[in-house]
Amino acid sequence: MSRTEPAGTPLGDTFHVFDTTLRDGAQREGISYSVADKLAVARHLDALGVGFIEGGWPGAMPKDTEFFARAAAGELELRHAVLVAFGSTRRAGRTAAEDPQVRALLDSQAPVVTLVAKSDRRHIERALRTDVAENCAMVADTVSLLRTEGRRVFLDAEHFFDGYKFDPDTALRVLEAAMTAGADVAVLCDTNGGMLPLGIAEVVTEVAARTGFRLGIHCQDDTGSAVANSVTAVQAGATHVQCTANGYGERTGNADLFAVVGNLVTKLGMPVLPDGALGELTRTSHALAEIANIAPDTHQAYVGTSAFAHKAGLHASAIKVDPELYNHMDPVDVGNGQRVLVTEMAGRASVELKATELGLDLAGHPDAVSAVTRTVKEREAAGWSFEAADASLELLMRSAMGEVEQVPFALESYRVILEHGTDGVVVSEATVRVVLADGRRQIATAEGNGPVNALDAALRAALTPTCPWLSEVELSDYKVRILTTGRSESFGTDAVTRVLLESTGTAGSWTTVGVHSNVVEASWLALVDALAYAALRERGPVTLNS
Amino acid sequence: MSRTEPAGTPLGDTFHVFDTTLRDGAQREGISYSVADKLAVARHLDALGVGFIEGGWPGAMPKDTEFFARAAAGELELRHAVLVAFGSTRRAGRTAAEDPQVRALLDSQAPVVTLVAKSDRRHIERALRTDVAENCAMVADTVSLLRTEGRRVFLDAEHFFDGYKFDPDTALRVLEAAMTAGADVAVLCDTNGGMLPLGIAEVVTEVAARTGFRLGIHCQDDTGSAVANSVTAVQAGATHVQCTANGYGERTGNADLFAVVGNLVTKLGMPVLPDGALGELTRTSHALAEIANIAPDTHQAYVGTSAFAHKAGLHASAIKVDPELYNHMDPVDVGNGQRVLVTEMAGRASVELKATELGLDLAGHPDAVSAVTRTVKEREAAGWSFEAADASLELLMRSAMGEVEQVPFALESYRVILEHGTDGVVVSEATVRVVLADGRRQIATAEGNGPVNALDAALRAALTPTCPWLSEVELSDYKVRILTTGRSESFGTDAVTRVLLESTGTAGSWTTVGVHSNVVEASWLALVDALAYAALRERGPVTLNS
Repeated sequence: MSRTEPAGTPLGDTFHVFDTTLRDGAQREGISYSVADKLAVARHLDALGVGFIEGGWPGAMPKDTEFFARAAAGELELRHAVLVAFGSTRRAGRTAAEDPQVRALLDSQAPVVTLVAKSDRRHIERALRTDVAENCAMVADTVSLLRTEGRRVFLDAEHFFDGYKFDPDTALRVLEAAMTAGADVAVLCDTNGGMLPLGIAEVVTEVAARTGFRLGIHCQDDTGSAVANSVTAVQAGATHVQCTANGYGERTGNADLFAVVGNLVTKLGMPVLPDGALGELTRTSHALAEIANIAPDTHQAYVGTSAFAHKAGLHASAIKVDPELYNHMDPVDVGNGQRVLVTEMAGRASVELKATELGLDLAGHPDAVSAVTRTVKEREAAGWSFEAADASLELLMRSAMGEVEQVPFALESYRVILEHGTDGVVVSEATVRVVLADGRRQIATAEGNGPVNALDAALRAALTPTCPWLSEVELSDYKVRILTTGRSESFGTDAVTRVLLESTGTAGSWTTVGVHSNVVEASWLALVDALAYAALRERGPVTLNS
Repeated sequence: MSRTEPAGTPLGDTFHVFDTTLRDGAQREGISYSVADKLAVARHLDALGVGFIEGGWPGAMPKDTEFFARAAAGELELRHAVLVAFGSTRRAGRTAAEDPQVRALLDSQAPVVTLVAKSDRRHIERALRTDVAENCAMVADTVSLLRTEGRRVFLDAEHFFDGYKFDPDTALRVLEAAMTAGADVAVLCDTNGGMLPLGIAEVVTEVAARTGFRLGIHCQDDTGSAVANSVTAVQAGATHVQCTANGYGERTGNADLFAVVGNLVTKLGMPVLPDGALGELTRTSHALAEIANIAPDTHQAYVGTSAFAHKAGLHASAIKVDPELYNHMDPVDVGNGQRVLVTEMAGRASVELKATELGLDLAGHPDAVSAVTRTVKEREAAGWSFEAADASLELLMRSAMGEVEQVPFALESYRVILEHGTDGVVVSEATVRVVLADGRRQIATAEGNGPVNALDAALRAALTPTCPWLSEVELSDYKVRILTTGRSESFGTDAVTRVLLESTGTAGSWTTVGVHSNVVEASWLALVDALAYAALRERGPVTLNS
């Protein structure tokens, strides 16, 4: 069995940042993690330095069982975090050892188990259809078995706050059953999410005083207060806080890990992450949104792209004089940045800054800066997005600086034919006609399992003989967004489409963008930029037009 | 001058719900209200029953000046709310009567003025470049003039919490200058948004005790706690709360009106809106998102479409028994509704509940429940997503119950040709071959600005002669997601594509789903479901196969 305590934070085991993105977060409408996604999420969370990663419910969900199996087989090496399996107590009228669900928790080989138990008498009687005594026995038996097998156990006391209000004795008896049997933390859950901070403070303080148990907190966001409730619980004595990345979770979601951690570190001065980790909050938040395939919340506390954005007006001029008067903290501390929206000067300044970041010196090219700024503004207004497509932006900048065309071919035409035949088989075929750098004309046809795949294959067939480096380049990700640019614009299949294409080669990976009303043409534009960038990186600039 | 007190709530003037969507909310990145928009927003807010509507800053913003002029000219009749103009105190070294900005406040004819004043000594000295005495004189003079002219005045004490912590005496002197001169409410503003609930409670309690003034609260959301901070301030004695619709505002935004009101009414039992108004929260939130041209936040407290959506199989079975155990309140009370999400996590109970929600009775069809549950799990594992595609799910259920095929045609084949010609023009052409319900074969060809648009047009051309109701149906939204479903599956343009298609007809709107490695085929599958559902809704089930 691996270690059961988090590593690397100054507070060690005395304070737990417990992430449940992979279990409770996955309940969010619209999230459907693959096992590969789950492993990737866990790696990001571990790199950030959370103490515990709840990976899922082995036995109940096949994907979760596989996740734990692959983690145990060595696919997941955790530097800071400890892996946790979630499960419920044994069923009524059965021993814990006989319960297949409890067996699955042990089989998962997770060194820590979070055990969910009912602590509201109404739920015990009406949902579980048993009595308080048997419920407590179920808790105690299951904790005992897990402890005997060497697991560390946290108790998730479901519906605790509602239950405590309705019948405090029952709620406390459930905690006691678990803690006496060897659980380490009694996690008070606001499962229905109806609490407010002062109520949380009162109950946490009272339960701590009455029991002396180590307490944790788990809040849902149904009153829009999950972050505040969690932080308040910590101020009232909880030393274990359960959160999810970006607040993902059922209904309105859970407490957002990044806001909770941001508040604990910067407002309460609690070093709950390893040194230097705070600066990774923004990057981690966006990476996890990407894996969940959910657009990042631009107005999210600490990590949103608008979180430190000031609109022209009352504050704008004063910020120039004294930025610290107008931000609650330095955005750089959480890996974010201040933005002023959006003057021509700010535009030029950010273009220059971005060029420096990309290794280009635009300082001596004022006309190029103007041209790039203008083009970016025009294209962004039409739906392009360069903030996620550095490679396309770099090509634009190089072109404005007078560098010659980098695409190793000129397009004459392409044609894609998609057929759904009478036999139900769907075929995609693409033909491209291009003129190569040496003046030769090439025609190539290829099939693919979709129009863009076929186009990519045909283009490669046409170019590979003269561009052998192309075999090193592959498309690694492809994203499509449908945009409705104006209010009165019609939606539907005639909307504008934005394609982001990620390519990987020996020089790493790069992202390009294309926008068009036709999804295939938008993909083509991104594909051409991807190859131009590949040409630049894989064998230096091409001198097609010189 | 019109009345200065809100009308219609049981609490009357003793508690103020003060909305600043049109002033502070408009600072949100991406919002740009026209004057017509502002009038529409004010009408929605008044209909909901807020006490005060801050319309903008006349004199400083031309649109705001026009808004107040048109309101005064009779374009805005308010039943519940009082209109408020926002502005700042006179400048240093000038009388209030001479100050054009103060003049503009009077010219606006708004019966109430919110006056913003610095209450943090650092801001007084470093941003305003004056001293505390002159700052207090500016406040007192301006309040006096406004009172002499018959206006009611609220003081927005900017940066109050930071200022009070840094130098409490200065902060209190500013409040005193305003209140002694005749202001009604001293609004404590957490302008930089760095506060947490317990800190808010402490300061509000202390200031109330030291001054006896009527206090208000204005919170920004930089710690993710604006709603909780606002409600906590009310619990600590504030009787005036400033919010914005959907939490719109600069940076991370302001306290969300709907969450604050939802909490005050349902958690603290304070009747802060007129009778019956609570049930309008959801509708109002969505209408105001529409005007702001911002997609509604699906996970927003109380009003989000996911706010009462349950996914987990664990909960779904219990919800069937006793819904009130799994919601913090009855969603109907705020004009929202409970939804059960059918996903791979779903068990039979979720499928049955969902069927009831869709108006189908699966209770007597155990085999159909099994078949639907199995199909949903299989398809979701392959990338389908039914939780957002009720129409596809309903078709699946009807089919499992033995209802005949609803599609009013059988597909023979389709072909799509996309050409990017030598002239750079991109053309999409689709041909469909279908057999109609009466056995006739139809071929139709159409162009579109993309492959799906062309297919949709060709299919309509083939079907409209026999399905005239089709002219009432249009595609209203189209979403594409690229999925990587399996462990070793490659990414790139050969990944699986999921299409969600929203259609609108006389029967409302409905969403269907299609999944395939080919984006066009995936779209086709969603399109066929959309038409099948339309056939069902627009003219009842078809008996093609019977």
